[in-house]
Amino acid sequence: MLSINKIKLIQSLTKKKYRQKYNLFVVEGIKNIKEFTFSRFLIKNIYSVEPISFLNENQYEIISYEELKKISFLTTPHNALALIELPQPEIIEITGIQLVLDDIQDPGNLGTIIRLADWFGIKQVICSMETADVYNPKATQATMGSLSRVNVVYTDLAEFLTKSKIPAYATDMDGENLYTTQLPDTAFIVMGNEGNGISENIRYACSHTLTIPRFGEEQKTESLNVAMSTGIVLSEFFSRKEKSKQG
Amino acid sequence: MLSINKIKLIQSLTKKKYRQKYNLFVVEGIKNIKEFTFSRFLIKNIYSVEPISFLNENQYEIISYEELKKISFLTTPHNALALIELPQPEIIEITGIQLVLDDIQDPGNLGTIIRLADWFGIKQVICSMETADVYNPKATQATMGSLSRVNVVYTDLAEFLTKSKIPAYATDMDGENLYTTQLPDTAFIVMGNEGNGISENIRYACSHTLTIPRFGEEQKTESLNVAMSTGIVLSEFFSRKEKSKQG
Repeated sequence: MLSINKIKLIQSLTKKKYRQKYNLFVVEGIKNIKEFTFSRFLIKNIYSVEPISFLNENQYEIISYEELKKISFLTTPHNALALIELPQPEIIEITGIQLVLDDIQDPGNLGTIIRLADWFGIKQVICSMETADVYNPKATQATMGSLSRVNVVYTDLAEFLTKSKIPAYATDMDGENLYTTQLPDTAFIVMGNEGNGISENIRYACSHTLTIPRFGEEQKTESLNVAMSTGIVLSEFFSRKEKSKQG
Repeated sequence: MLSINKIKLIQSLTKKKYRQKYNLFVVEGIKNIKEFTFSRFLIKNIYSVEPISFLNENQYEIISYEELKKISFLTTPHNALALIELPQPEIIEITGIQLVLDDIQDPGNLGTIIRLADWFGIKQVICSMETADVYNPKATQATMGSLSRVNVVYTDLAEFLTKSKIPAYATDMDGENLYTTQLPDTAFIVMGNEGNGISENIRYACSHTLTIPRFGEEQKTESLNVAMSTGIVLSEFFSRKEKSKQG
């Protein structure tokens, strides 16, 4: 049985202020919770409407579906909800492709991008301080558990990129053709804000600019959504590896 | 001033049954309406809360924002709503890349795919009879006006693909590597249902099967959403053209 105070606490976690105050965020659905269970994250509580096969009985609490509805952030709640401790991730020094996000505002776009990163085996996503919070319930839901495998960090991007020796590729409307430019195995791919693109000072800190060529009618076709653009750019970077393997 | 009957009629257009009965569908926002105005579509009525610069005054009716809220299908209505006659599109015989959709169920996915088709300059999208209706308000909204430029037709896919001489590429989990397979300039790219993928009889009617390789951990990373997969597959087909131009 969930106390009223507990219910209120969980409901408050939709706001960043309270996530930071309680040092907690929410993950929903047994499938997603499983991925966090076997990861570096620390799970505080799990509330489930059904037994969870991969846990001991003392690791979770059975609640009613009515109770789950009260604490869930979904229109149609799944089967379980977990409270997980906010991590304090630090930037790790690695090679390979990494994503850099300059003020992505929509939590759904952010979640989709983390899921894409995971699909391509990308280990780190570095976000500007103004990028949406990845522990927002809408974002964690859109990541579908990928957040448990990708290191998502927030930092001062301009400073970070200026200090780094890894080449940074800004994506924009007037750069080099993505499909015909030479692409390295180690790079930062920088994606910009939904409405305004990449900020001036971030672009200045990038060594290259890439553009996805448009094949439809100029000035008529709507530009691609940022998550879709990210998918296409990542696919091109990774396809080069596959092609070079083939020789 | 909108009559109660007119308001009821417009509200009913959220259902396919009524779209077919009145032979009408809805497009919202002056920007989108503009694209349909200069297209093969026939516009029946336009209701706007503000003057429309590219139309004569007798081509639209000024309404209040309160009225627009009553007829709009959006949580936050834009500035205008148009009633447009349902077209009776037929399959056109063309070369180049065309998309084939086998039971895409989500109107948002369908709309995003039409928008992608437009970005890549694809002229035709051929849908199974069970694919979501593209004139559903959620789908037209997601197409962002692209529907005015792409010929979207519904047909018996198995019969159509069996009769056609154009090679058809099914996309699936166990096909050839998208990045290293030779791809033609003229082809059907077949995308399957969100949950079940491509149906057996449609796969049987395809000459090839393609797979987007996964670089992340097997069996852990969630599979890509169908709209994202479509974007990645199209990008690879079109990038080959750019690369061959380069020599």
